[in-house]
Amino acid sequence: MRITVDVGVIGAGPGGYIAAIRAAQLGLRVVCMDNWADVTGAPAPGGTCGNVGCIPSKALLESSAHFEMVKQDVAVHGIEVKGATLNLNQMLTRKDGIVRDNNKGILFLFRKNGVSFYHGTASFMRRSDAGYDIRVSGREGHVLTCRHIVIATGSSPRALPDTPFDEKRILSNVGALAMESIPRRLGIIGAGVIGLELGSVWRRLGAQVTILESQPAILSFADRQIAALAEKAFRTQGLSIHTGVSINKVTTSASQVSVEYTDTDATTQRSHFDRLIVAIGRTPHTAELAHDKVGLQLDERGFIVVDEQCRTNLPNVWAVGDVVRGPMLAHKAEEEGLAVAERIAGRFAQVDYGTLPYVLYTRPEMAWAGKTEQELEAEGREYRAGCFPFSANGRARAMSETEGIVKVLADAKTDTVLGVHMIGPVVSELIGEVVLAMSFKASSEDIAQVCHAHPTLSEALREAALGVNSRSLNS
Amino acid sequence: MRITVDVGVIGAGPGGYIAAIRAAQLGLRVVCMDNWADVTGAPAPGGTCGNVGCIPSKALLESSAHFEMVKQDVAVHGIEVKGATLNLNQMLTRKDGIVRDNNKGILFLFRKNGVSFYHGTASFMRRSDAGYDIRVSGREGHVLTCRHIVIATGSSPRALPDTPFDEKRILSNVGALAMESIPRRLGIIGAGVIGLELGSVWRRLGAQVTILESQPAILSFADRQIAALAEKAFRTQGLSIHTGVSINKVTTSASQVSVEYTDTDATTQRSHFDRLIVAIGRTPHTAELAHDKVGLQLDERGFIVVDEQCRTNLPNVWAVGDVVRGPMLAHKAEEEGLAVAERIAGRFAQVDYGTLPYVLYTRPEMAWAGKTEQELEAEGREYRAGCFPFSANGRARAMSETEGIVKVLADAKTDTVLGVHMIGPVVSELIGEVVLAMSFKASSEDIAQVCHAHPTLSEALREAALGVNSRSLNS
Repeated sequence: MRITVDVGVIGAGPGGYIAAIRAAQLGLRVVCMDNWADVTGAPAPGGTCGNVGCIPSKALLESSAHFEMVKQDVAVHGIEVKGATLNLNQMLTRKDGIVRDNNKGILFLFRKNGVSFYHGTASFMRRSDAGYDIRVSGREGHVLTCRHIVIATGSSPRALPDTPFDEKRILSNVGALAMESIPRRLGIIGAGVIGLELGSVWRRLGAQVTILESQPAILSFADRQIAALAEKAFRTQGLSIHTGVSINKVTTSASQVSVEYTDTDATTQRSHFDRLIVAIGRTPHTAELAHDKVGLQLDERGFIVVDEQCRTNLPNVWAVGDVVRGPMLAHKAEEEGLAVAERIAGRFAQVDYGTLPYVLYTRPEMAWAGKTEQELEAEGREYRAGCFPFSANGRARAMSETEGIVKVLADAKTDTVLGVHMIGPVVSELIGEVVLAMSFKASSEDIAQVCHAHPTLSEALREAALGVNSRSLNS
Repeated sequence: MRITVDVGVIGAGPGGYIAAIRAAQLGLRVVCMDNWADVTGAPAPGGTCGNVGCIPSKALLESSAHFEMVKQDVAVHGIEVKGATLNLNQMLTRKDGIVRDNNKGILFLFRKNGVSFYHGTASFMRRSDAGYDIRVSGREGHVLTCRHIVIATGSSPRALPDTPFDEKRILSNVGALAMESIPRRLGIIGAGVIGLELGSVWRRLGAQVTILESQPAILSFADRQIAALAEKAFRTQGLSIHTGVSINKVTTSASQVSVEYTDTDATTQRSHFDRLIVAIGRTPHTAELAHDKVGLQLDERGFIVVDEQCRTNLPNVWAVGDVVRGPMLAHKAEEEGLAVAERIAGRFAQVDYGTLPYVLYTRPEMAWAGKTEQELEAEGREYRAGCFPFSANGRARAMSETEGIVKVLADAKTDTVLGVHMIGPVVSELIGEVVLAMSFKASSEDIAQVCHAHPTLSEALREAALGVNSRSLNS
């Protein structure tokens, strides 16, 4: 039997599942196809984010933060812990339970919103008069004819040349979230978001963590000042970070993995680890799409070519999320998925790529939106900066979490906020106000005028905004 | 020697010290007078908030939350704590240190901004041609002539009739933050912010806490639904809450304090406690001002009468914060202090009383701004509500902190946000975005359109905003 629908969404990660739900809410007949399976073979919608990304990493970041808190940070509060041990299996089981609940939650949302879910790998068969024929290869095969297609197939971890992931010694994010024991010596290649978050997790749990980064500094896309503060904090915590290195060779033996690299002094170094996480970026995942069957255009790096509105070169074929240009962020995928659903339904929608927030769930956390100082300098844009340290914030002091700053960058002439960069406690949640403000094209004065509850960490944002015009009150 | 200044600020709490600093930043010659002293007799600016309110309570809330976390909540993460003991003295010492740092910080800010600080009790002597003569009675006496006066003398805890605070058995916020041992049975009269926060602290540390409240529900000024969820949560945690009671008599003996009250069944009850916190409200503090010397008008409840702009009945005499009408909130005092400083300098300033945030640092936290549902109902305003539970939020699940909801109330016709009410994890920081949005007169659609980082708790706010038009994606 041939099934014909309005919208076929390929992929049930954040971009895909949100697109499917929104399209269904708008009255369209929608299917969502996804091949992710859990250990039992059951459907596991949620994509990288839900299964081996944002959600499980946040679960482990939370658990490991508690472990570190118990071991070293509660003493200052007058709490004397006799001894704390780690049951890693329980910690991982909790994480897996959260992932499982997330999978089930998405299936529930599909049912609730009337989205039909097909578990299997979707690929193009042909273009037809009615749209596109898609084959779903799973336990049962299906052919679906879809008037519109939304491709949200995400991305895959990039391996080093000649060093495939075995998820035993050479780990991608997948294996890095599921180590059944704490490695004594953990190597990480890449000091980006994934490397730093997972490095933090395993360091807190007891591993000796070494991070090798080819760029001259960690987090090269972050504001330079914030990245420098982060690097200092992470080093103090015990992460061994080597920047500006060049990886020559990775060799594995039965007992360890060895990395040969050239350091900034052009000296060859060898490091030996029990496990190595490779977090050097991700590549768009289009392998199973059979895009050539319909002439879907990819660029030289394998991304599906789309315009600003996520339209591919084919009529009524859209693509969103990691598989297209732009930052690989779950919420960027969600925004695009949402917007595409609206567009298919004939409505207006826009994604504001200029205000997409970035968040790192390290400790201190980092979060930012808009332009960095180095970007503004490169553009020759005149701006003013206001900074405020959490050490002068009452709630941060009450929390004994005073490390970090908030920095507001505003146009020198119009005072429009151009970027906000934060490192410190709970900045992952403070960034919400920033993005809303920037969406309203707020000036630093606008933020400075708004009452912020006392004592909250959000007062640091206001103080930084006041600082743009040298009017900080508490520093 | 007579000293003449532009602005004399009486009180160095949040309203006063902020007014003084801002006035000085605007080029005025400013003195700030305050009589608060620490145990050594040294100046302790910061007022109730800094010395015996917001700051020390947050310090103890943080510490006691860690204690509870260590004892009961880390197990789910796979962390096995062998045993944890409390060193209350260390916990209180940490709190005192934070208070001390805050005192010193304000004195530093005064020096930095050129505010002259006078330690002593300020009172009106007379009105003069040049302004007002103020006597500061401290170790050294001073007379200052001030062109403008800003009164920011705050408030004092209200005692029960015939039951003065002795701070041993009958405690105000002052004694409640400094108990040198954990009472076995702690009674609290009043289920408002102070009663619930301090009740939470001492319950977490091991006290058996009973709260007696005369209103039919706790937090009668909060949104009814949120207050009901809070009451349920607090009861589950072990707070024994009795609402709708009427206190008849409090008697103290050498060994205990007894409270006789009438319950909702009109039955007389007697409860016995080791200590009793009375948190039934606060009264404006004007006792030492000698307001009659200059004819400063007070209302029948003792508040200094002011207009919308904080002008008293006397020219160039202003009053801000707890000593005037409006909610007794530190940030309300700050906003008024800031605005008055601007007005004295001849600049425009406005306080948006309609968006003042309210925060409770219990667990779950509570935070809100704008109108409650019962207020909108009473006004006959047509509104729509969108709700979202933290149990459907990815980060809350990763944190195992899924209790609570976000509720957005918007005008049925214009969609303008009228109120946002939250109970749940870190809502004290989520309220920042809410107030900024409401300051921009945002619609629920505006909040719904803004990208929120994934996975963050702030996504729950967006989802609640989407819910106003039945478009929540994840519930």
